[in-house]
Amino acid sequence: MHVAIPLYPRFTALDAVGPYTVLAFTPDTTVTFVAAEAGPVTDDRGTLTLIATASYADVPRPDVIVVPGGPGTMEALSDEALLGWIRQAHEHTRWTTSVCTGSLLLGAAGLLSGLKATSHWAILDHLERFGATPVSERVVGSGKIVTAAGVSAGIDMALTLLAQARDEVTAQAVQLAIEYDPQPPFTCGSPKTAPEGLAERALSVIT
Amino acid sequence: MHVAIPLYPRFTALDAVGPYTVLAFTPDTTVTFVAAEAGPVTDDRGTLTLIATASYADVPRPDVIVVPGGPGTMEALSDEALLGWIRQAHEHTRWTTSVCTGSLLLGAAGLLSGLKATSHWAILDHLERFGATPVSERVVGSGKIVTAAGVSAGIDMALTLLAQARDEVTAQAVQLAIEYDPQPPFTCGSPKTAPEGLAERALSVIT
Repeated sequence: MHVAIPLYPRFTALDAVGPYTVLAFTPDTTVTFVAAEAGPVTDDRGTLTLIATASYADVPRPDVIVVPGGPGTMEALSDEALLGWIRQAHEHTRWTTSVCTGSLLLGAAGLLSGLKATSHWAILDHLERFGATPVSERVVGSGKIVTAAGVSAGIDMALTLLAQARDEVTAQAVQLAIEYDPQPPFTCGSPKTAPEGLAERALSVIT
Repeated sequence: MHVAIPLYPRFTALDAVGPYTVLAFTPDTTVTFVAAEAGPVTDDRGTLTLIATASYADVPRPDVIVVPGGPGTMEALSDEALLGWIRQAHEHTRWTTSVCTGSLLLGAAGLLSGLKATSHWAILDHLERFGATPVSERVVGSGKIVTAAGVSAGIDMALTLLAQARDEVTAQAVQLAIEYDPQPPFTCGSPKTAPEGLAERALSVIT
């Protein structure tokens, strides 16, 4: 299985590296970070740079794509090289996936029309402009398109995908390998559970 | 607050990027990836390269250090440049922390003698050779030293730390910003909950 993760300026690191770590631990799987051109791409904080080892043109037909989100998504909505790659890769993928605001890029590539999809809670409604039906769930599957909620949801999405792409025991083995037995210190990771007023604080952290 | 995360060959990406994303979203916080020399460092799968933007010598007195683990830890146990930096930085840190097998590096630096600590379940007992008492918990605090269990536990550790370093509302805002409302697809992320035989499968995934 060949997985490609596109990087673009001001992506959120965990959006990409969460699913990456899950899928890279999967036997007989290769993950390639791609970008418009091979080389360094810096994240939304300006403090972490990942290396894309291939260009979009180098990886035209991956089995799976995982499109991360981040503050840079809004500018990337007019990045025709990225959108064109997503659109063309999607024709041959087994799964086309996104994390966080990455679903807006799937939408801008024309892939979400008439489908249910999710995204980061702060911009969930924006999916409607691409003809999608926003769904406030952690992982949303619509045929071969799978979208995840914000940032950390990519880990859950990748494990869910892996169980389908391979089998449940392989996904469970990876979950145990990365000791994914989460114990968040607070019950506030979703707008559904967060105390009143916390969303405003969270938005000020993101921007 | 200045956080430094040392990178060494064959670290596990999520060990570093989980806590990084939490702490980099924290207001008035800078995170710097450091290494023996500034430059690219490649992870345990050989497919993801992060850029260290500073050398150990460039960042002698960070407020917090987060030492990631990975298959490369065993070789790093004899990396005197890394161990010396950990040892000296620790003299001035507010918190000295690790994720996964990174705790073995704290041990090799001489910091865990007589203390409780945790690590990845697969090598938890190895902490004894450094005089530490292994504890099978997700996050273990011993004064200013905080160790986390395997890979994904660094996210819980960083949020716990943040609540202490700042305040609970700031930590909650970051938890909501990264939408950390985990919904793992299986109940098997710890040896305590995993079905019989899964640990062997997980070990074959790691190595």
